[in-house]
Parts: sequence; structure tokens; C-alpha cells
Amino acid sequence: MVELRNHVPLSICVNSVRTCWDSHDKGGCYSEPTDDINEADKNLLKRVILKHKHASTAEHLVYNFKIFDVSRALLQELARHRMASPSVKSTRYTLKELKNEEPFTTYTDINEQEYTKDGRERAEKYIVMTSDERVNRMSILALDNLRDLLKAGICNDIAKYSLPESFKSEISLTINARSLQNLLTLRTSKAALWEIRNLANDMFNVLPDSHKFLFIDSVKKI
Amino acid sequence: MVELRNHVPLSICVNSVRTCWDSHDKGGCYSEPTDDINEADKNLLKRVILKHKHASTAEHLVYNFKIFDVSRALLQELARHRMASPSVKSTRYTLKELKNEEPFTTYTDINEQEYTKDGRERAEKYIVMTSDERVNRMSILALDNLRDLLKAGICNDIAKYSLPESFKSEISLTINARSLQNLLTLRTSKAALWEIRNLANDMFNVLPDSHKFLFIDSVKKI
Amino acid sequence: MVELRNHVPLSICVNSVRTCWDSHDKGGCYSEPTDDINEADKNLLKRVILKHKHASTAEHLVYNFKIFDVSRALLQELARHRMASPSVKSTRYTLKELKNEEPFTTYTDINEQEYTKDGRERAEKYIVMTSDERVNRMSILALDNLRDLLKAGICNDIAKYSLPESFKSEISLTINARSLQNLLTLRTSKAALWEIRNLANDMFNVLPDSHKFLFIDSVKKI
Amino acid sequence: MVELRNHVPLSICVNSVRTCWDSHDKGGCYSEPTDDINEADKNLLKRVILKHKHASTAEHLVYNFKIFDVSRALLQELARHRMASPSVKSTRYTLKELKNEEPFTTYTDINEQEYTKDGRERAEKYIVMTSDERVNRMSILALDNLRDLLKAGICNDIAKYSLPESFKSEISLTINARSLQNLLTLRTSKAALWEIRNLANDMFNVLPDSHKFLFIDSVKKI
Repeated sequence: MVELRNHVPLSICVNSVRTCWDSHDKGGCYSEPTDDINEADKNLLKRVILKHKHASTAEHLVYNFKIFDVSRALLQELARHRMASPSVKSTRYTLKELKNEEPFTTYTDINEQEYTKDGRERAEKYIVMTSDERVNRMSILALDNLRDLLKAGICNDIAKYSLPESFKSEISLTINARSLQNLLTLRTSKAALWEIRNLANDMFNVLPDSHKFLFIDSVKKI
Repeated sequence: MVELRNHVPLSICVNSVRTCWDSHDKGGCYSEPTDDINEADKNLLKRVILKHKHASTAEHLVYNFKIFDVSRALLQELARHRMASPSVKSTRYTLKELKNEEPFTTYTDINEQEYTKDGRERAEKYIVMTSDERVNRMSILALDNLRDLLKAGICNDIAKYSLPESFKSEISLTINARSLQNLLTLRTSKAALWEIRNLANDMFNVLPDSHKFLFIDSVKKI
Repeated sequence: MVELRNHVPLSICVNSVRTCWDSHDKGGCYSEPTDDINEADKNLLKRVILKHKHASTAEHLVYNFKIFDVSRALLQELARHRMASPSVKSTRYTLKELKNEEPFTTYTDINEQEYTKDGRERAEKYIVMTSDERVNRMSILALDNLRDLLKAGICNDIAKYSLPESFKSEISLTINARSLQNLLTLRTSKAALWEIRNLANDMFNVLPDSHKFLFIDSVKKI
Repeated sequence: MVELRNHVPLSICVNSVRTCWDSHDKGGCYSEPTDDINEADKNLLKRVILKHKHASTAEHLVYNFKIFDVSRALLQELARHRMASPSVKSTRYTLKELKNEEPFTTYTDINEQEYTKDGRERAEKYIVMTSDERVNRMSILALDNLRDLLKAGICNDIAKYSLPESFKSEISLTINARSLQNLLTLRTSKAALWEIRNLANDMFNVLPDSHKFLFIDSVKKI
């Protein structure tokens, strides 16, 4: 669901913090950017960033995530985190694959539209499935209907209005540690939408182990 | 579709611009904030803001819009304008009205689900209709299916995954003149999605006439 | 030191908050934007904004301040509040007035440069005085030296390097309620620089009385 | 004056751009983040970022700079670039070194305060020298006066008001490619203050050669 593609090493942040107080002599000497910082420097980051005395120093740490197989419903929420840079797979330009799919549904004896076993499996490529199969069924029917509309030559910009919110998206998300702390705090809450709660926990899990101490307070809940 | 609820008067921006060069004596004297500025001050704003020598001064002008009857598809695009403050009607908390609706569809002789004339009319409250009735039909079917899921007691956070992107939203949007110029430039373009292009033009139209000179270059296209 | 030139009325924020939960029927009906909201709406803002459940809704309230007679030292700190729009009197373009001043200092019997009584008074127009007269004296001497440099025809962009940080600036600052809460919290702290602490308290004091409940937690200290 | 401490490799940006159009198959396959991208991908970035069709994709590229030996005058301007994260050496906490210096000036026969040859050399550690020695002299005198005030036990928060703007600062600056393009465009202009113009050119020069094509239009002037 999520991969960390690149990140700024901790030593860059240590150096930035020490700039403020001109205390470079009190920390480690790192010839190259590294996550392998010494205990004194780790304690410095804990003190300065976690106790929020100087939260802006956390902005030097930037993470490039790749997020897969999340719904447009989740995207609506993720986009509200404005202190971040998302690039999103556009439904205006990328529905060709769906157009070329075989039907996902068939009609039963009583003329009821129903998804096929094979259709259900292929639909998972396009749809985020929920815990309720009745909802999933509606999504697959809508997906098949959309496929028909595209086959009929209706342009993406019109046809996309019938996309279900379960439709999968893909996002490249660049975000700094300060904004990520905020995201994890809000979105790992029990009050958060289940899918973004899962994503938030996954984002924490794919962080380098050496960085997790900066976010553990944001994700741990009673 | 859009109303302007409040805005910062032009004289506030004039005063801010004149702060930079300490040229208060060259402009009008306004005892109260006003849009009724003199010609010299209007020319000042044209020069400083429109020729982009000092674009940040446009940030003192802030507009509070109320946006109605726009789709979740549009919302996906609007949310990318991060230099703005949106408050959005939440589908996590506001589906009760839909749940209480009568069905929008019926079944034909050949057991095909079809919207009724009355259903079509009532659906317009919930769905942004496109120029293609086949797409609209799919949206109304999905709307009716969602209504069934809600009636069946499925919670909003699961049921909402079958929402079509045509589902209507409502937004309070606060945005400053600099970010609004950017929005209007990008979204009145012929390359923009039709619905947000309409919205962008409407946003321009509801601006006070005295403010339009700041945005005319952003909306006028060949 | 600070004036509030314009602000967005509270009812705009109430309406925005009610958009999220579609609860317009539970609040007051205001035909025009107003600060005179009823008790239910005030409690709503308290709950939503002050308990930080939905802090972004505070961004609809925007304040336009005019700040006078503050030092360049303060400006260095104020500029760090990046969620705000400042327009600042530029020392690159506005030193003409100083150039035209009479000398602020004279030389004593032992050839020591000393400010005159009249010079001390006129210098207050240009210099933020501190609680220590030895520091003020140095500022006035530096001011007089700068005046000499300007008289000698040295251009502003070079001469300004000898400006003391006590030199007065003037700022038009537009800031929303969310960012203002953050500013007041950080800058009314006892750990803050004395001058910006004074400014922060003054900013709170010039707010409309009806808005102060949104900021009282930010400024009150034990 | 400036060093680049860390940067996000180009392939991360390529991948983000290709997310939007789902065109991963048209570009190179990079197992690790790298600046060594193929010609097709470089042309993609040129097209998408430089022609400003989709400027937000440039935000995935983030640079961590260390900036030395720049004045507080420059800092006043740099801080206006709000789409960036600066950590700055604080004059509230870091004047101890200056306090421990020997005097930079002496008194001449006619009791005129004058810097010594040795003082002039040692002052270069603290002061950005301009092209005009009369201005430099004023800065050194102010520096020496400040040193006296600190020796006399006046606390930093008061004494710093007599700091000249030429006083040296040190900054850790994290900034993305989009904001850096804006900075370089504005600050390499002939209208920019000479010191920040030098800095902007230096920032361009220390970028990896493989990244310079993204900024060459911003720095080249007629």
C-alpha cells in the first residue's frame, strides 16, 4: 500500500538544529549525511522536536512516499494535508486500461446484473474493497457501467462522474517530518476513516527504524 | 453555484503596498476600509500586483466564498489549491437526508433498474448532472443503491465507498487574491475540467466589480 | 504600536463550520456578515476551534494589522511566521527622510561623540529604545553615522549594512486566526524576546472584544 | 558562502510525474534513487516542470543548503521566502564568542575611535564587508561597541538592538525546486540586493550539474 522511496538523513536535521544555538562542537561529526547519529544527537532531536520547542527544525527531514491501491475517498482526505506535495494518478487521462477490460458483470435469470467470480477478481485491480460485500457489489456494478460508458465513446471528463469513490488511485507524496507528525496524529485516531487510518499506520511502519522515535508519540494511542 | 460572502476592501491592500515604499502621501486618505479607491491607487495596484513586481501584496485581499452544487469530482481538483482554506460538507456525517429519501428508481418489465421521472428530479438535489444522460443514469442508479445500503444500516464510512463522483458537495472557501489569480488562470483554461472551468468563471463573476481588474488577465483567453 | 485595520466577521466562520456537518439549521441566521453571533454559535466555535478538533476552520477568520514603531530585530522574528502575509517598509527605498535630518550627535570637549538632547528626541522616530540607555546611545551613534554615510552619497544598498537592529520598521500583516493563535502562544511566552512579547499582547488587545475568546488560551500564562 | 548538504535525486521526481499520467513504462527503470536519468526522462521533466504545465511536481525535489557568512540584512530578505524551512543562528543565544574577543578599535591622538589592523581582520569573522570602507568602519565600530555592552553584562536580548545589519548569520535552508526556482528568478535579478544576488548565484552553482537544467532559465539574464 505504501513505500518509502527516499528520505533526508537524520544528520542533516541535527546539523540544522545545532545551527540555531551554534553548538556543532557538542554533537557528532558526520562526513556524509547519515541516519547513524550518536546518542547525544538523538537526544537533541527528541528534546527540540518532540517537546515542540522548535518544531520548524523537523521540516528539514523530508520523505518521498509512493502510495498504491488507495481509494478516491481516501484521496479526498489526504488532499487536505496542505503542507505536503502530492502527485496523483489522473482519472482524466488514465482510464484507458479500464476501457479495455472484459465485462465484470453478467445478468442472472431474473435479469439482475451481478458480478462474476472472475469479474470480482479483476475488479480488485480497480476498486478498494470494504468489509461489506454489498458495498463492494455496488462498486463493481458502477465500475462495469463506467466501462460501458467508456466503450460507448463517452469522454473521460464526462464518464468519470459515475466513478465510485472506491476507485483506486496512486499517489507520490512528499512530506516533511513536521507535517507527517500532524498527519499521523490526526489519521491514526480512532475517529479517522478506516482506510486512511490503515494508511497512516503503514506510513509509520515503512519509515526507517532510526526515524521512528520522532513519530512514536503521534501514532501510539491508548 | 457560488456566492461571495465577505471580502477585504481594496484600500487595505493600497495601504499595505504603500507601506513598502512609504508613499502614503501619494494616495487617497480613507477613514474606513473601502473598495472606492481613487485612480492613482488603482493604478498603483495594477502596477505592483498585475505586473507581478511584488505579488505578495495581493495576499492582503482575502475572499470568503460559499460554493454549492458542485461534484466530488470537482472537489478533488479544488483541494489541490493548497494556498486556500476549504471547509467541506462531510460525507462521513451528512448522508442522513439521503437515507430518508424515497427510491429514485423502479424496475421495468424486463426487470431493468430505471430511474423514474420523479426520481430524476429529486436526484438533482444530490447529483451534478453532466451533458450525457447515460452518465447521469449511472449516477442515479448508484445513488439509489447507496440509499439502499444506508437503509440496510450500513454505516456511512463503509457505504460512502459506492458514492459516485457526481455526488454534490458544498464548500466554504477562503482564498487570497494571489492564490485566486492562480486558480482562475489554471481553471478557466480550455484544458481544465468543464465543471471547475464553470466554477472558476462564476467565481470571477461574483467578485465585486471594483476588484475585477485584478483578475481580468487571469480569466481572459483568446 | 499596532492597529487592526480590518477583520472577517465571526458569522463567516460559523457558517463555514456548519458547512462540514450540514447543521445550518442549528445556528443563527445572519443576513449580513456580523460579529454579533448568538450563544449557540459561539459555543460551536469554542468547541470546534479551541478544542482543536478542526483547527482549519479558524482559517476563515482573517485579520489585517498595521504595525508601527517596531525594530528590525523584531522583524527578524516576525518574518518566521510563514503562515502570514507581511508587507514591510523597505530600507532599500525609504532612507531619504533620515538623510535629510540634522545631526543627532555632537563632540564633547574630549572629542567624544555624544548625542544631544534634541538628537535623542528626534532619534526616537527612527530607533526603538531599550531599557538600557547604553544600548540606546550606541544605536543613536550608529544612526548618526548612517546619516553621514547617506549624506556622503553612499547608496542605500551599501549604507544599510550599518543600520542598527533597533532601527524602526513598519509592517502591514495579514494573518488568519489559526496562525495568530500560534503566534500569540509562542510570542507571549516569557521565553520570547521582550519586544515581540509586547507586540503579541498588543495584537491581542486590539482584537474586537467579540473575537477574544478564540485567543484567550493562547495569551494567558500562569 | 553556501554548501549543498543533501538533495532528492531526479528519479524520484520522474517517478512522481509519471504517476499522474500512468506512464511508468515510457521511462527508465531505476532500482535506487539516482540523478542519472535517461534522456527521455530528462525531457519529461523539462516539458512538465519548465513549461510550467504542472509546476507542483517540482516540489518532490528538495535541497538542504548550509549558508555561511551572510549578513542579517540578507537574512531579512531570505526570510520572505515562506515556502522554505530555515534554521538560523540566533543572536539571542550565540553572542558569547564576541563577548570574549579583544577590542577591535583603539583611540587616535585626537581621541577618535578607529579600528586597528588586527581588529579589522578579526572583525571579518563577524561582519559582512561591503564595497565601501566607510560603511565597514561604521560596522566595526558598532561591533566593538556591542562587545563593550556584552562585557558590561548587558544581556543579549537588550544588547542585540545595537547589532549592525552587517552582522554575520548562518542558516540551514531546506527548499524545494519550485520555491528555489522562484527564489533564483527574483534574487538573481539586477534589481535584487547585491548580497542576496551573490548568494542566489552561489546556490545555483553548488547544485548538482545534473539538476541545473531545471534552474538555468531562472538565473540567466540578458
